[in-house]
Amino acid sequence: MKTLPPIRRLALAAACLALAAGAHAAETTAPLSAAASDPAALQWMVGAPPPADKIIRFDDGSYFNFPQLRWSVSHFRQLMPTVAVARGLKAPVPLPRALRNDIDSLRFTPLGAKETMTWEQSLGANYTDGIVVLHRGRIVYERYFGVLKEGGQHGAMSVTKSVMGTIGAALVAEGKLDPGKKVAEYVPELAKSAFGDATVRQVLDMTTGLQFSEDYADPKAEVWQHAAAGSPLPKPKDYTGPRSYFEYLQTVRHEGRHGEGFGYRTVNSDVLGWIIARVTGQSVNEYLSEHVWQKLGAEQDAYMTVDSTGTPFAGGGLNAGLRDLARFGEMLRNDGRYNGQQILPKAAVDDIRRGGDKQLFAKGGYDLLKGWSYRDMWWVTHNEHGAYMARGVYGQRIYIDPKAEMVIVRFASTPTAANAANDPTTTPAFEALGKLLLAKPQ
Amino acid sequence: MKTLPPIRRLALAAACLALAAGAHAAETTAPLSAAASDPAALQWMVGAPPPADKIIRFDDGSYFNFPQLRWSVSHFRQLMPTVAVARGLKAPVPLPRALRNDIDSLRFTPLGAKETMTWEQSLGANYTDGIVVLHRGRIVYERYFGVLKEGGQHGAMSVTKSVMGTIGAALVAEGKLDPGKKVAEYVPELAKSAFGDATVRQVLDMTTGLQFSEDYADPKAEVWQHAAAGSPLPKPKDYTGPRSYFEYLQTVRHEGRHGEGFGYRTVNSDVLGWIIARVTGQSVNEYLSEHVWQKLGAEQDAYMTVDSTGTPFAGGGLNAGLRDLARFGEMLRNDGRYNGQQILPKAAVDDIRRGGDKQLFAKGGYDLLKGWSYRDMWWVTHNEHGAYMARGVYGQRIYIDPKAEMVIVRFASTPTAANAANDPTTTPAFEALGKLLLAKPQ
Repeated sequence: MKTLPPIRRLALAAACLALAAGAHAAETTAPLSAAASDPAALQWMVGAPPPADKIIRFDDGSYFNFPQLRWSVSHFRQLMPTVAVARGLKAPVPLPRALRNDIDSLRFTPLGAKETMTWEQSLGANYTDGIVVLHRGRIVYERYFGVLKEGGQHGAMSVTKSVMGTIGAALVAEGKLDPGKKVAEYVPELAKSAFGDATVRQVLDMTTGLQFSEDYADPKAEVWQHAAAGSPLPKPKDYTGPRSYFEYLQTVRHEGRHGEGFGYRTVNSDVLGWIIARVTGQSVNEYLSEHVWQKLGAEQDAYMTVDSTGTPFAGGGLNAGLRDLARFGEMLRNDGRYNGQQILPKAAVDDIRRGGDKQLFAKGGYDLLKGWSYRDMWWVTHNEHGAYMARGVYGQRIYIDPKAEMVIVRFASTPTAANAANDPTTTPAFEALGKLLLAKPQ
Repeated sequence: MKTLPPIRRLALAAACLALAAGAHAAETTAPLSAAASDPAALQWMVGAPPPADKIIRFDDGSYFNFPQLRWSVSHFRQLMPTVAVARGLKAPVPLPRALRNDIDSLRFTPLGAKETMTWEQSLGANYTDGIVVLHRGRIVYERYFGVLKEGGQHGAMSVTKSVMGTIGAALVAEGKLDPGKKVAEYVPELAKSAFGDATVRQVLDMTTGLQFSEDYADPKAEVWQHAAAGSPLPKPKDYTGPRSYFEYLQTVRHEGRHGEGFGYRTVNSDVLGWIIARVTGQSVNEYLSEHVWQKLGAEQDAYMTVDSTGTPFAGGGLNAGLRDLARFGEMLRNDGRYNGQQILPKAAVDDIRRGGDKQLFAKGGYDLLKGWSYRDMWWVTHNEHGAYMARGVYGQRIYIDPKAEMVIVRFASTPTAANAANDPTTTPAFEALGKLLLAKPQ
């Protein structure tokens, strides 16, 4: 990495700040297995000081290489500045437990495979760091691997987008945000950018037409400029580009027309974060704390990474405890009601569940997600259980199956960013578990 | 700042990482008053984005200028990488409340003054951000100012040292750390440094003879090299110095002989942190979490700033909630017992309370602290109440008055680093309150 020019170093060091679920990373050699890449076994950052070859640093970008990434995803606050999504000072509200022993042996057929696989085998196949399953609000299954413990926080990556989209949908349901209005009406600074004439709805559903490539293999891809702008590290002396997420967003140009197709672009979520801040008068972490996290009875503070001006990364910066994201999912499964109170409007959850335009989604080119749609920054399966999910690179998921009354949250650190690599061993596993819980409730 | 060479910029940006209670900062003009410098009124970092002249940044060092510092001390995690001192997942143990209304009007005479002042007036005089008083374990007084709220964390500065010293004293009392042994026996890497032939006791009581100037007015002072080594920011290309706290400590040279006088040097606390990590097999934040914070029933996670290799800054990196530090102080006041359990050995607290060698202390040259001593990184007043305290630059304090059964914790952000500037309006106020509570318990 040391031979790269400063701008690339800067961008690489901040790569995670921009990685999105659509990233097309290619592996040239077979990656280490989950067991061989276990970050606890590899003893990253163990010792005072750790041995030189076991140190993971932010400033050279090594923290985002595989297998170091398997440690980093549970330690982002140690690598970069963050703001809290505070849980408040009250006692956490415990999640009831009713563990089942029939899940590990559950068999399913991975997409495109002929052989079946057990649920337990899928955990390794997906480089799982932590997974929890709620059925009817009770924990029926919970596992932690590597360096993630129940008291730790893990990067949610683009699951962040769905959390932001949920807030956006809630503000719409509350009449505080008009989805038909142009973005520029809420954020005048974006008037001259591609976002200026997009509607809030187009941003929420990512049907904007933007010149923004997230192809990491292309050094000229806009995602690198986005990452450089959002990096908390000092800019090189000759750097003349934007110096914050908000500055970067103003530079995004049109490509194609808004509303003609689904195009998954992280910057839409950043724009939504800006809109939320303008509409509510709070930064997204503060709003999320006050209106969601504190009401959920969360057991841990969550946090968000920030740029050098203190703006949280709404496109991917959330880090949270596994069970707290499960509380969030369970709240949605219960139409926004949880912990004895209506936390978010039922109409917001209805809007997410209904999904978006399938034909627009089909233009996004996701071969493994046929018949799905995208709404309020959630991925809607339209399967027979009506499941919808939040997806983040390297295997992050919130999966809500209304018919089975099931919520799954998974943290992972796969060798490949794109979820296309783990969808085959994930989606059918989650569907099979939904069917099991529906058929055999306990 | 932009005209400074990179090494100075780096050091400035990390200045807080090394600031110590003995710093001799000089004000050339009268600073803004507490009211005029109120960080909430000045609206630092308010807005999405904040106006350019209201943004506080880490990378140019502006965060550590007064009055920006008044905002920064409540937001260090937003400026630099940190590790948690986790409170655990259980319910916090509430502090009982029995508020008194006779404290604000309490009068005392500041050191060297002829006129008296009220307690309430002293809050502004000391640029108080938050202050809580426990009497017999109950909150009798609590105030927050500026941007600090009850749910926030504030930099404890060199109060960190006393927390580390407490752990050190506990390990000694438990027989896990031999105060008579040489430092090099625990940390062989320090054998060739000045610390190599110092005893653990000399480190704990800061009677080492070190070439280490904390004179911030001197650009060649070692404190700048310490700060540069510990900065989490990337090093300049031409930087050839140490790249972490642990690397820096190995470069410290002798000046004078160990054991001949008190010399307040931050690096002693960093060495203690290293010793604690080696003796316990845990980093200091992990040990503090598991053995103290979780047992206290703390209501918030605390955190510590870290260098680029993930080492917590044991000399000054702790940030905590006001009431949680009060729980810590109350535990000490109760001989290490709190929340229904013996958290630290009584012998450790006895050792702190007894104090150190007054004659060695007198050589430190603290005119306002006559007759005091220093033990286990605590400042012991030897006054008639047997009070002892933790002190951090810019006005941080934990003050424990055993006779009055009182604990005071104060967070502040004074214009001047050195506590000599606020001692005159602090020490007599705390003593007067101790006398009031002793005379009129409720």
